[in-house]
Amino acid sequence: MSDKKIQPRIMPGFMELLPPDQILFNKMKDTIKDVYESFGFLPLDTPVLELSDVLLAKAGGETEKQIYRFTKGDTDMAMRFDLTVPLARYVAQHAGELTFPFKRYQISKVYRGERPQKGRFREFYQCDIDIIGNDELPLIHDAEIPAVIYSIFKKLDFGKFTIRINNRKVLNGFFGSLGLDDSIADILRTIDKIDKIGAQKVLAELSDLGIDSAKGKKILSFITASGSADEKIAYLKSLGIENEIFAEGVDELEKVSGYMRMFGIEDDYFTIDLTIARGLDYYTGTVYETVLDEYRNLGSVCSGGRYDNLTGYYTKQKMPGIGISIGLTRLFSQLRSAEIIKPESSSVVKALIAPMGIDLKFPLEIADKLRNAGISTEVYYQDKAFKHKMKYANKAGIPYVAIIGEDELKNGEVTVKNMLTGEQQTVKAEEIISVIK
Amino acid sequence: MSDKKIQPRIMPGFMELLPPDQILFNKMKDTIKDVYESFGFLPLDTPVLELSDVLLAKAGGETEKQIYRFTKGDTDMAMRFDLTVPLARYVAQHAGELTFPFKRYQISKVYRGERPQKGRFREFYQCDIDIIGNDELPLIHDAEIPAVIYSIFKKLDFGKFTIRINNRKVLNGFFGSLGLDDSIADILRTIDKIDKIGAQKVLAELSDLGIDSAKGKKILSFITASGSADEKIAYLKSLGIENEIFAEGVDELEKVSGYMRMFGIEDDYFTIDLTIARGLDYYTGTVYETVLDEYRNLGSVCSGGRYDNLTGYYTKQKMPGIGISIGLTRLFSQLRSAEIIKPESSSVVKALIAPMGIDLKFPLEIADKLRNAGISTEVYYQDKAFKHKMKYANKAGIPYVAIIGEDELKNGEVTVKNMLTGEQQTVKAEEIISVIK
Repeated sequence: MSDKKIQPRIMPGFMELLPPDQILFNKMKDTIKDVYESFGFLPLDTPVLELSDVLLAKAGGETEKQIYRFTKGDTDMAMRFDLTVPLARYVAQHAGELTFPFKRYQISKVYRGERPQKGRFREFYQCDIDIIGNDELPLIHDAEIPAVIYSIFKKLDFGKFTIRINNRKVLNGFFGSLGLDDSIADILRTIDKIDKIGAQKVLAELSDLGIDSAKGKKILSFITASGSADEKIAYLKSLGIENEIFAEGVDELEKVSGYMRMFGIEDDYFTIDLTIARGLDYYTGTVYETVLDEYRNLGSVCSGGRYDNLTGYYTKQKMPGIGISIGLTRLFSQLRSAEIIKPESSSVVKALIAPMGIDLKFPLEIADKLRNAGISTEVYYQDKAFKHKMKYANKAGIPYVAIIGEDELKNGEVTVKNMLTGEQQTVKAEEIISVIK
Repeated sequence: MSDKKIQPRIMPGFMELLPPDQILFNKMKDTIKDVYESFGFLPLDTPVLELSDVLLAKAGGETEKQIYRFTKGDTDMAMRFDLTVPLARYVAQHAGELTFPFKRYQISKVYRGERPQKGRFREFYQCDIDIIGNDELPLIHDAEIPAVIYSIFKKLDFGKFTIRINNRKVLNGFFGSLGLDDSIADILRTIDKIDKIGAQKVLAELSDLGIDSAKGKKILSFITASGSADEKIAYLKSLGIENEIFAEGVDELEKVSGYMRMFGIEDDYFTIDLTIARGLDYYTGTVYETVLDEYRNLGSVCSGGRYDNLTGYYTKQKMPGIGISIGLTRLFSQLRSAEIIKPESSSVVKALIAPMGIDLKFPLEIADKLRNAGISTEVYYQDKAFKHKMKYANKAGIPYVAIIGEDELKNGEVTVKNMLTGEQQTVKAEEIISVIK
């Protein structure tokens, strides 16, 4: 082996954690997974590498620039940059073998070769759910998605949060009624910035788009309307706009709000926000954003919406769907930097067996018993002093230590110490599971 | 959107599953993960993409040819081809922040651009554990690793299996005593083939290596020695070989066998197999293979061993370690093709709520109650006939259906049908959890 050493390092923009943080990260990931499964979403695991023509079917300029794409042999391939395109490909490819509505989740890494900067990752986890219909998808699913979000953020416990919903038909209908059909994309892009640049600058930018001041003010009063979900719906109805798309959008918003209540989402946890458009071109109905009320500066931590046709690039079958995505790596990284979350333990272990100068046979039997009862157990093999063993358990955050010396061995007993309370009790070997559980 | 459709497809050599198989695959993966954690191994999640100079520090010709390597901007990067090199890099990089012995598991995809053929994958899961010492690592860990293997394959329940162990020092010492030090690598390569080509051809190949027939026969009698672990150790001792390395190896084999019994591994489930060398150059002590007794043609399903120095390419610190790897994608694919395993369910759902012509409020409350109790629950939203709902539950393999019609709504009750037994009972809404659990 050569004496010249290679510096061990990873590339910027890639998150790699030490064990205590990895344990914390996995806990968040498992919470999200468990809630997804509890609502009946099915697991999916698509390849990281796909053929470039398949992956880039719908991609635009920015995506093309950022993607990790290369050739091996004669094959032009690329690493996935999101989980939506692989889902579209999968559903188109396997439509005949799936049951619709097809509800799937995928929690996987995606890749974007961005210029690394704070909060931007080149490799990051997305946690996606989507519900795909064959030809049609009932509106109740527009409320099922926020019910999942609600359950997740309740369990993740980062304090109060708000699910903001809107409907693209309301926006499209409203602007259509002003005769601004052709400028919708530009207007939505401008509206999207209101949180960042403020109302006056939005008005100025609208004027730059050739929208007269009267219409500009109508648009501004529309998007800054305040009140509860019910009040906003009443406001929308009061506008007296006669536009079919608009009416459809308002009706959907009203129904989805009602369904959300039926799903048990407290009124306090959702709002109608008429400024939400979501940048992506393919959203066509309900759209969502989610903010943590105490950490609004993080922006939306979970976004998505309804789209008319997922699979248009691959098949003639029409597949409407609805979905959301949590950018877990970014969320974790932000919460961790702000010390909103902190590792609780540097070990996955619940019990440390500490044999005190005796043969390992009996201690290993106890370890085996605990593991079979689902309790992660470590044995301290080294013949060190008692205090070393206690120090190790403390440092690793292991909640129970089972001390086994000659007396315990003789009596078939174990002395269990609760490292949190300091309490200590000697029990029969059979009883250790109930003490620790 | 253009009318020209792109054919939805993936590349050969990439495994992608339909939901019922994905559920089955995840169950195996979770079993392995749970056992790894139950023994106190810590989770690790390294980047898929690393710098080529870091990843290829120790790579040889075959690896270089197979690796997915490319340049973006000025950076020469590659996709990981195993989990051992990233572990070495990680441990060298973070040695000061880790507690030793450092026990980690990683269950992740790795990439090899091989020519696709049956049973060979270009993207596949490896499930690795390693225990890394700082300078030294006690021998007891050589038995802890097979204890983990034992626990996993007991739980996976593919029938009887055998953990075959050997020790490279026994091999090295034996061949050293014959004055064949210089040919060890060639001899081991030849021996490795005995299962495939048989004893006579091994003898012929040894002769081709310039080994005389007397020594050839000694080698053959050595590697074909039969008997229990204790008998093999007695046999090794009886050879009267005076070679320090050999004696050390025999002593380690004897101690590790003893420790394995202490860990609760039944004698029937392990054997000493003097033919095991493991191809890789870096194994230096105990080596393992594992075969499923009823499916020996699958080859070793879990292999590994002890190595003297994991991190030599990155740091001067000496880091001995021991580890094993389960090639999960290949194992799953083989077991599934042979119909040794089969999907039991096409859903993750345990309970289907079937509202019968009533408002969804009460059914959704029941669903919420079940989900909060950890029971995955789906609601059948569509207003279809009773038999459609039952058919759906049957097809998806959902074990319980909760039927809620007007009578149930009026009385705050639910009619629960066990789809396996056909049993049906009407209970108070509060009791549904205990019925299903």
